[in-house]
Amino acid sequence: MSVNEEAVMQTSAGGKPERKRVKPGIIDCDVHPIPKSLDQIKQYMPKYWRDRFRGGGRGLFYNNPFHGMRQDSHPPGGGPAGSDPDFVRKQLIEPNNIKTAILIPRENSCQFPDLDYGNAIASAHNEWIADTWIGPDNPDGVFKSSIVINHSDPVYAAQEIDRWAHHKHNIQVTTDSGARFLLGHRNFHPIYEACCRHNLPLAIHPGLDGIGINILPSPGNPSHYIEWHTCMSLSFQAHLVSLLTEGTFERYPDLRIVLVEGSSTWLVPLMWRLDMEYKALRVEIPWVKKRPSEYLRDHVRLTSQPLERPENDEDLLQMLRMMDAEHLLMFSSDYPHWDFDNPKLAFPKLPEKLYNRIFFENAEQFYGLQQ
Amino acid sequence: MSVNEEAVMQTSAGGKPERKRVKPGIIDCDVHPIPKSLDQIKQYMPKYWRDRFRGGGRGLFYNNPFHGMRQDSHPPGGGPAGSDPDFVRKQLIEPNNIKTAILIPRENSCQFPDLDYGNAIASAHNEWIADTWIGPDNPDGVFKSSIVINHSDPVYAAQEIDRWAHHKHNIQVTTDSGARFLLGHRNFHPIYEACCRHNLPLAIHPGLDGIGINILPSPGNPSHYIEWHTCMSLSFQAHLVSLLTEGTFERYPDLRIVLVEGSSTWLVPLMWRLDMEYKALRVEIPWVKKRPSEYLRDHVRLTSQPLERPENDEDLLQMLRMMDAEHLLMFSSDYPHWDFDNPKLAFPKLPEKLYNRIFFENAEQFYGLQQ
Repeated sequence: MSVNEEAVMQTSAGGKPERKRVKPGIIDCDVHPIPKSLDQIKQYMPKYWRDRFRGGGRGLFYNNPFHGMRQDSHPPGGGPAGSDPDFVRKQLIEPNNIKTAILIPRENSCQFPDLDYGNAIASAHNEWIADTWIGPDNPDGVFKSSIVINHSDPVYAAQEIDRWAHHKHNIQVTTDSGARFLLGHRNFHPIYEACCRHNLPLAIHPGLDGIGINILPSPGNPSHYIEWHTCMSLSFQAHLVSLLTEGTFERYPDLRIVLVEGSSTWLVPLMWRLDMEYKALRVEIPWVKKRPSEYLRDHVRLTSQPLERPENDEDLLQMLRMMDAEHLLMFSSDYPHWDFDNPKLAFPKLPEKLYNRIFFENAEQFYGLQQ
Repeated sequence: MSVNEEAVMQTSAGGKPERKRVKPGIIDCDVHPIPKSLDQIKQYMPKYWRDRFRGGGRGLFYNNPFHGMRQDSHPPGGGPAGSDPDFVRKQLIEPNNIKTAILIPRENSCQFPDLDYGNAIASAHNEWIADTWIGPDNPDGVFKSSIVINHSDPVYAAQEIDRWAHHKHNIQVTTDSGARFLLGHRNFHPIYEACCRHNLPLAIHPGLDGIGINILPSPGNPSHYIEWHTCMSLSFQAHLVSLLTEGTFERYPDLRIVLVEGSSTWLVPLMWRLDMEYKALRVEIPWVKKRPSEYLRDHVRLTSQPLERPENDEDLLQMLRMMDAEHLLMFSSDYPHWDFDNPKLAFPKLPEKLYNRIFFENAEQFYGLQQ
């Protein structure tokens, strides 16, 4: 039971009428809308690509040995898990008092060597989302979404951002941690310029590390899904170090990055190490004006799922304190994926102030979602 | 001032003679012997390779912008830092009360595409060390050393281990974290069989990640030394996950691995994450018989340098507790490299029991160095 639920159940003494405190809604920063079928995407593609489109993703590599999706999330009316907005409302949003679900479509466009093909896939997904999840399917406005881009073609990706930034329900841009360059590389500057131009954060989500033409995040191919899945966090560490040491946040003072589903507690040892290196080596990177960890509050957020749960809850609380979770961490569930974090169960009992920061205040402020 | 130094300075009450407790000597698990010149290695190479040998290392890539070596470590008699055993005694060993310095020669043989060339380099280094540092230069036995191998040719590497394991001062095998396969890959089994055959641990040391034909530890090329140097720890994380998920320690119950200079506090979030993944996915890796973190005490040690120093010492102490430093961490200085950790300054004040474990007891037990 969360702190807020307890608050709701408090009764005042002396038999007076129950005093209910209004329970603020949760913001879930990682919900995946899934197409009902490939045809739902193909209809937005030029014929040349439509006839060749076979979807994206990891193909035959690094798949969960059971299922990639919660098996109870297939909509009663048919279709894949996560493909029916109304069932997402019924299963995820209503029972968990979620006021905003931030959609991260997984279009997997950056894995293809043919840039035009990747661009066509990204564009089709943006059209599909605008015509469904954040269009007619969103009368209550509970869904916000992310503009998908093919980061392998940064100039085209910037145009795609320009094309969709006007939509009131698009509140960020998203791309994959699987890449051919580390994210601090100046190759990506057109994307960062576009994000700043429209004041949209960029959310990095894992999935295509070492897939297609993307480089592995470790010095060799993992053999099994568990190994690949555990080491996804290494990409995030490398990308964050790249952004910080390349001075990306000095060049783009308005750039904001969200690290989604890369786990988060690695931030503590990584920032200790990078700050220490900076002390000795800052002459090499004079464009970095302060200790790398000092850039985080202004520029970086992490989402919570998958949250590690050590045997001792107190250890996790210590780590949340050391990583400045109070300012940097935002709740996410990863619905409808297999490793979904239930907002009622994912965390140990948190102090109310910290609970509020993680479950809604941090995201409200970061995305400008104040009610 | 360390706990042990304080113990030495205690005086008993009432003006009685000062009672000095004998201060146990430190074991330094990472000291680098440097050849006086390339000729010192070339003399051990067949003529065919001797004429082509130009050394190893990172060449023009990822070099410290100042110096890679402590500038006060050049021997007064000439030659590179770390090339004179007597000066190492004078500068490192005597003033720090080091009773055993474990040498890790850096032969850099695994970066070359020509396996025979790499093998010739490794063999020549083993001969050089036997003829100098652990031969006539070692009358007091303070130096123990590591058999260097070219892990890119595992069968030859195993023969090299067989060739040198008899030497009483060779107490482990060493190789680089830069690789073309993750270390759990069965490609390396001949090396592990040889290590177990001779009861020698295998020490993994960084230096060649992404160099030569080795794969990068991150999804793109770092641009600067600080970035490359910070992310060296990512290789170690990936290799450890590989060893644990491939079941290497079940197949080789006597195999022991030392993770040298890869930093160490990342172990906490990584093991939290891997244990959590194991709970959900162990059916994929049935050869792993217990939670991955449970293999560490029997099979894995980490050396301390470079030790992160957060602003708050108490945070580091919490992390040392969570990572089981009491059993897993062994002091190392990395002499004579630029980021040398002084045993008197590297750590915050430690409880005496933990100090003793880290500075000598763990290494005594692991290497069988009890006096």
